[in-house]
Amino acid sequence: MKIVVDAFGGDKAPDEIIEGVVIALERNKDLQVILTGDKNKLESLLAGRYVDRIIIEHAPSVITNDHVPTEAIRKMEDSSLVRAFDILKTQDDVIALVSAGSTGAILTGAIMKIGRIKGITRPALAPILPTKKNNKDVLLCDSGANIDCKPINLYHFALMASAYYSILYDVENPKVGLLNIGVEEHKGNDLTREAYHILKNSKLNFIGNVEAREYMSGDIDVMVAEGFAGNVLLKASEGAVGAVLSLLKKSIKSHFLSKLGALFMRKTFNELKNRIDVLSKHGGSPFLGVKKLVMKNHGSSGRQNIASSIQQAILLHKNQLIAKIENALAEKVE
Amino acid sequence: MKIVVDAFGGDKAPDEIIEGVVIALERNKDLQVILTGDKNKLESLLAGRYVDRIIIEHAPSVITNDHVPTEAIRKMEDSSLVRAFDILKTQDDVIALVSAGSTGAILTGAIMKIGRIKGITRPALAPILPTKKNNKDVLLCDSGANIDCKPINLYHFALMASAYYSILYDVENPKVGLLNIGVEEHKGNDLTREAYHILKNSKLNFIGNVEAREYMSGDIDVMVAEGFAGNVLLKASEGAVGAVLSLLKKSIKSHFLSKLGALFMRKTFNELKNRIDVLSKHGGSPFLGVKKLVMKNHGSSGRQNIASSIQQAILLHKNQLIAKIENALAEKVE
Repeated sequence: MKIVVDAFGGDKAPDEIIEGVVIALERNKDLQVILTGDKNKLESLLAGRYVDRIIIEHAPSVITNDHVPTEAIRKMEDSSLVRAFDILKTQDDVIALVSAGSTGAILTGAIMKIGRIKGITRPALAPILPTKKNNKDVLLCDSGANIDCKPINLYHFALMASAYYSILYDVENPKVGLLNIGVEEHKGNDLTREAYHILKNSKLNFIGNVEAREYMSGDIDVMVAEGFAGNVLLKASEGAVGAVLSLLKKSIKSHFLSKLGALFMRKTFNELKNRIDVLSKHGGSPFLGVKKLVMKNHGSSGRQNIASSIQQAILLHKNQLIAKIENALAEKVE
Repeated sequence: MKIVVDAFGGDKAPDEIIEGVVIALERNKDLQVILTGDKNKLESLLAGRYVDRIIIEHAPSVITNDHVPTEAIRKMEDSSLVRAFDILKTQDDVIALVSAGSTGAILTGAIMKIGRIKGITRPALAPILPTKKNNKDVLLCDSGANIDCKPINLYHFALMASAYYSILYDVENPKVGLLNIGVEEHKGNDLTREAYHILKNSKLNFIGNVEAREYMSGDIDVMVAEGFAGNVLLKASEGAVGAVLSLLKKSIKSHFLSKLGALFMRKTFNELKNRIDVLSKHGGSPFLGVKKLVMKNHGSSGRQNIASSIQQAILLHKNQLIAKIENALAEKVE
């Protein structure tokens, strides 16, 4: 099994990317990795490790967040990301691409070089978010890549994220909720009302409208949203959690007894931190709706993140995520 | 100074409403209150307190959340809410109405009985939310009453909430941010791009686009949003804060040392609780854009809430909120 890794994408590239690859190779005996990037640097950092299972493809330039995605993908053929896409595209035995580079460039590359699954107009990311139940996560799709969506796009988000969720958590019919400002069928705007109708008549396990307050309840598996609202949902949650923790910290510092208490609570604070940072456990997210697996990692990804992302790509490949999405799309919708 | 209070609106009516009125009367020696509702019940609950400063207007029926607002306002003339609106409308010396009843009915009553300020098509609520800075709140307008807004509506929300904020916190030019999915001018959808343009060319202190993650930073005074996104922002924050506190609680319970630590941290947990529940300090929110002051309290309001809401109405009246909005509207916008 072969995976291509963009060794120069992300804030901690190439060092942490390479160490992540090494961890993944240790864990998966039948894995081979193609690394794209500056050959000399990569060879020196690898220092002879796994020479038999790592192939280096020389690509001296790097696409950053400052580049315009479409131009960069078109013109920077010698970049680590474009080189990786060309390998994913042309080599049938390469099952996935992993990159912690610019989101825009990865999405553009995925669409231009690999192409969309037939029927899907808008590929999307579905980040994994924590809920208030332990061991229960929720996927949010779309989280901001797609704004001004049509009702059918929301149905596709639901369908793709359901297929993804069912593999990640080994659940047969994940519960799908539609982000809305009230639970009744008629609530919201034209988009949510039409999407409600499509979802209700689909084969998905649609449980109805869900308010933003309830999406972390642990009772929903997949939260479907138009990208603008989805982005607000994601970032408002992050902001609110950050604000609470910041207020908590400040208050602890200003009371002697609280400071003492906080020492005893170290275990709880660590648990909370790990629970909130659920994504690092999974590494990254696939771009849903693309013909091959393209894993997008956070720009700040370290070695564990990269290793988890490779692991996830193997899981999604073995469980045929893309075929599952294609099959679900073939089913009739009213 | 006279204020009319709907004594039968809200989950804790009439008992807590009346006790709130009594607190307000104690605090404000020149205040008179007109209570609308069942005369016998009110007289028995008041038991002779403040007979010289409380006028009871008999209104035997009550509008609940189950009534259709427009029908209820039109037909239930003998309800405590409609009676209160009729008094606010016809008696010039009554400066405000306070109710913890159905939001829809209060909004409908405000529009049908009192009317909109000239130029305003969409009255809005601007709830007060906490930030991560102590003693620094942020107003969110609109928080869900108005969906499918036009750019000019967002400008009006900014203008009205700025006038409200400047009185509440005695600040000259409150900083206005526009909720968006990125900070750059071109980000977002057509609505945010056009609203950005209007706000940038207005006399308001517009600081640009603000992401949902940053609205609790304490650096923004007024957050402007289309109602759907504003509602998601508000409820996502509530949900995320609730989820964190729930995870914290569960973790504390499951570790002996954490349980011990939590005892020492009681002061901090109380501080946090009070900080998050900032709205109860202010009681309620006025419907911005209505010709007279209509204060909407949460359905679960208790006596302190009602007393605070009356206090806020007095403050807003003395500082001429409505005239300030009218004057700001008269200024030219590009």
